[in-house]
Order: sequence, then C-alpha cells, then structure tokens
Amino acid sequence: MCKTFEDGWFNSIQESLGCAFSLRVNRRLEKVRSEYQKIEIFESEQFGTLMTLDGTLVLNAKDSFLYHEMISHPAIFSHPRPRRVCIVGGGNCGVLREVLRHPEITDVVLVELDQQVSELTQQYFPELYQAQSDERVSLKFCDAIKWMKKADDEMFDIIIIDAAAAVRKKGGALNQKFFAQCQRVLNSGGILVQHTASPLLHLDALTQVRASLREAGFHDLHTLSLPQAASTASGSCTMARKDVPFNKFREQAVFEKIFDTRYYNAEVHRGASALPNYVKQAFRDAGV
Amino acid sequence: MCKTFEDGWFNSIQESLGCAFSLRVNRRLEKVRSEYQKIEIFESEQFGTLMTLDGTLVLNAKDSFLYHEMISHPAIFSHPRPRRVCIVGGGNCGVLREVLRHPEITDVVLVELDQQVSELTQQYFPELYQAQSDERVSLKFCDAIKWMKKADDEMFDIIIIDAAAAVRKKGGALNQKFFAQCQRVLNSGGILVQHTASPLLHLDALTQVRASLREAGFHDLHTLSLPQAASTASGSCTMARKDVPFNKFREQAVFEKIFDTRYYNAEVHRGASALPNYVKQAFRDAGV
Repeated sequence: MCKTFEDGWFNSIQESLGCAFSLRVNRRLEKVRSEYQKIEIFESEQFGTLMTLDGTLVLNAKDSFLYHEMISHPAIFSHPRPRRVCIVGGGNCGVLREVLRHPEITDVVLVELDQQVSELTQQYFPELYQAQSDERVSLKFCDAIKWMKKADDEMFDIIIIDAAAAVRKKGGALNQKFFAQCQRVLNSGGILVQHTASPLLHLDALTQVRASLREAGFHDLHTLSLPQAASTASGSCTMARKDVPFNKFREQAVFEKIFDTRYYNAEVHRGASALPNYVKQAFRDAGV
Repeated sequence: MCKTFEDGWFNSIQESLGCAFSLRVNRRLEKVRSEYQKIEIFESEQFGTLMTLDGTLVLNAKDSFLYHEMISHPAIFSHPRPRRVCIVGGGNCGVLREVLRHPEITDVVLVELDQQVSELTQQYFPELYQAQSDERVSLKFCDAIKWMKKADDEMFDIIIIDAAAAVRKKGGALNQKFFAQCQRVLNSGGILVQHTASPLLHLDALTQVRASLREAGFHDLHTLSLPQAASTASGSCTMARKDVPFNKFREQAVFEKIFDTRYYNAEVHRGASALPNYVKQAFRDAGV
C-alpha cells in the first residue's frame, strides 16, 4: 500500500480497521490548503472527478448520488409536513440539490465551515453547485456548532448533518451536546438525519451515535442501511425524531413525486429499513 | 498501489473498474499451487483468516457469513418444498453449512473442482469444514460443467452456484449453456441462485447474467441486493425459477425457523428485494 497518489492511486486507508479502498487516478487537478483543511480534486480513471478533504474521499462523480438521495429523501418523506430544512456541512451542494427537488420545502439553510469547498464545487461539480442559486437557499459560511447554539428554538422540520471532516474534527458535531442543540432547534416531530458508520465495519461507532442521540433526548431512532459505495460516506444513515415516534413514511407522496431519483424509491426506503439480526442484537444489547 | 502482500497488505485490484480493496495482513500462512489454481491463506489484522484463489479473496472470517446466508436462505425460503440441493463450487463449505441448517433439506450434492480447497478449509476454517460430515452430504470433486451435463433431469429443487474462480475460468459456469443444463437438472419450480455483480460497479455484468438466464429458459428472475463486504463475493445475488413465477417467500417459516442467523431475517429478505431505480431501468432497457 503506497500512501501517495503519485503512483496512480488515491488510497483511502482505514487504519483502525486494517482495510483500504483505492481508486486509480489520472492526475490531481487541485491541491488547496484552506483555513480549515486540505482540499484536493482528482481526475479518477473510472469514478469521474473526486473531492477529498484531508485525504478523506467525500465526493465522486460516479456513485455519490446514492448517498445524496438516501440522506435526503427518506427523512423528508418520513416527515408529515416538511417545510424548513437545515443542512450542516454539505458545502458541495449534493445534498442541497436533492432537498430542493421537493417543492414543499420552502427554506433551506446551509451551514458550511469552509467556503473554499463551495468554490471548488463551483469549478469542478457545476451540476451540484447550481443548487446554491435557488431562492429558497440561505448560505452561512461559519462554524455550525457555534451557529446551532445561537439558533432559535423550533426553527426547522429537518436537520441533515452532511458531516464534513472539518466539522467532525472540531470535535463537537457528532456528540451529544451538538445533538441536544439540534433537538432544541427542531420543531416537535422534527427529524435529524446523519450518515452513520457501516454496520459491518463500525458497529460500535454506529451504536455509540445512537446512544448519543438517545441521551440528547430524541424520542425515536431509525437506522437505514446503505450499500457500501466508493465514498466513505456510506454504510448507514440514522434518523432521530423529536417528541414523537416515526410514523410510516408518506408512501403515496413518493409514488406521486414530480422529480426523478436514480436510487431512491418506496421499496428501497422500506428495504433500507430492514436491519440484519446482528445489528438489531447490537442495538438491543446497548439499549439504543 | 503495491501488488504484493509483502508490504503488509493483501490487495484485491479490479483493473477494469480502476479500484481496489485492501486488507492489512500479518503473514501468509499457506501458498499452495493446486492442479487448478493458486490457493493462499493469510492471517489478516482485522478480518481474521483469509482464503484467496488466484489472488481473489473468496473467504474471510469477519464478514463471509453475510454472503453465505444470503445466497442460501432467500432461495430456500422462496421454494415451497425444498428437499434436494446442489452446490456448485463452494469447497470451503460456508454455503453448505447454511443449507444444512434447514431440517427439511434431505440431500446436498457439493460439486467442487479442487479438493485442495476443502483440505485447506479443514485446516484453517474448521467451523465451516465440519458441515462435510453431515450424512445428508455427498461430495463430488470434479468439473461441475461436465458433471452437470451428465446429471439426470429434474434431480434438484435448488442449485446454488458458489462460483469459485476456478469454475469461472473454465469459461462455462456463468454462461448460457451451463445455465441451460442447470435448468434441465432442476425440478419444475426449482430455483437456481448465484452471486452476481455489484449493481453499482458492474451493472452491465449483472444485466448480462440476467439475459443469459432468460435465454437459458428460466421463467422468472429475482435479483437481491447485498451490501458490499470485504470479499468480492458480494454486491447482489440473482435467483432464477424454472417454469413458474416466484411466489412470496415462506415468511411464516422464517419466523418459525429453528436455527439462528446473524444476517438473514424476513425483513432483510424483503429489503434485499428492493432495487434502486437505476437498476430497474437497466433491466427494463435490456429486457431482462
């Protein structure tokens, strides 16, 4: 395993798991050190353009649609009347684009730490970036942890944590305190959703996030399985609901939706909700 | 990307896809050149013991249970009265073990080309190998393609192709002629199941296998999604039924089953049947 891309591979190494995923790259298009992180853009051989943050693959042109759809549509269709959405991180606008496909969404606030992520998206992923110009969108380039602390109560129906490495590294985004702030800022019945780890590779981490969400006061949790894609941003996502249990999702609305999806449909939504026995057992054992 | 394990990694490189999956290994325990292939056993850092055939990872102690369960139980529970099963390949006995958990299965014929795979399983995966001693099992160490040609009509209710690299390389196992022989050897209503490619990475290959199964005369097809695991033996499996369409699977029997499963349950069975829109579209476009 060679750790550099110079020999033609981008390597995403998970040291603690003793495994790695690698993509063959033709060349590096950008290497920017922003105030917060190292941002690189690669041209890969088979997966299109890649964006990495501090060496972690966060976006590729081939399969990121899967993650963008699955962190957006199940949560939105699980809410009876979604109007106002907050996206934490997500400066590459891939999630934003999916959220905006829903005409009933009236306002989206995107809170991204690193403006240079957005600027590089504009240049290298223009099909994602154009979502920024929708009039329903407000962009906030600032620290989401601080921003969430100051936000008013009950402002949003849905909060999507599209956890950029930068936000995670600040040490707060994924912990109980941040979840508790999110819970406060959600309306009653509101839904927080975030990418969680692969059940197969990181069951302990997934269980820990669920425990933190419970401790933060969320009433009900719902974990969805995602197939492992090239990006590390796959494996599962976990939704947490304030005050009330999850109802059945709005299946009729899925059938009647006026936009196309490449991955998401009603069966996939139901199917992703099916958890393997060993995962259910782990959640039971941990009381989460 | 270093292609050898000497620097501490086993690399599974998919040249045509420009990607690779790697596992950190402590040492190589065996390197055997059998009559048919190179068989290696590694001790990995986090995934337990590994078996590779001609450099392809076919078995690991951490997550192979997922594949073994999902290529066995959905097919068996989709058949109204399964009694006689043929496993093509599968010399490591992982699939055999799952099949034998069903008390209604009366006979299993395992047709493996390479006896040394079984011998190394005995040494390094004894928990799998012990399935061989079940009195319902007949072992045939021979070429499955030739064996299937000579087999009587309508001998089996289920054929599981646990496609070893060796069988694939012989050039016949995955093609239409072999499928047609399997169809002949199945009872009416019988089910063929095999691992098929990842929809995300190899959609063309998956579509091609479905086309071959149709051309071989199977009446109905049903593809299940599997999460991507460390072994390349994941992504999806495809079931094909002779003469009649798939009914609903025997869900009550799943609830009442007398054995434990780590991955499989009724919701997972239903969930794996949900196909993303882009996959359905590809099947429609190809008429498969």
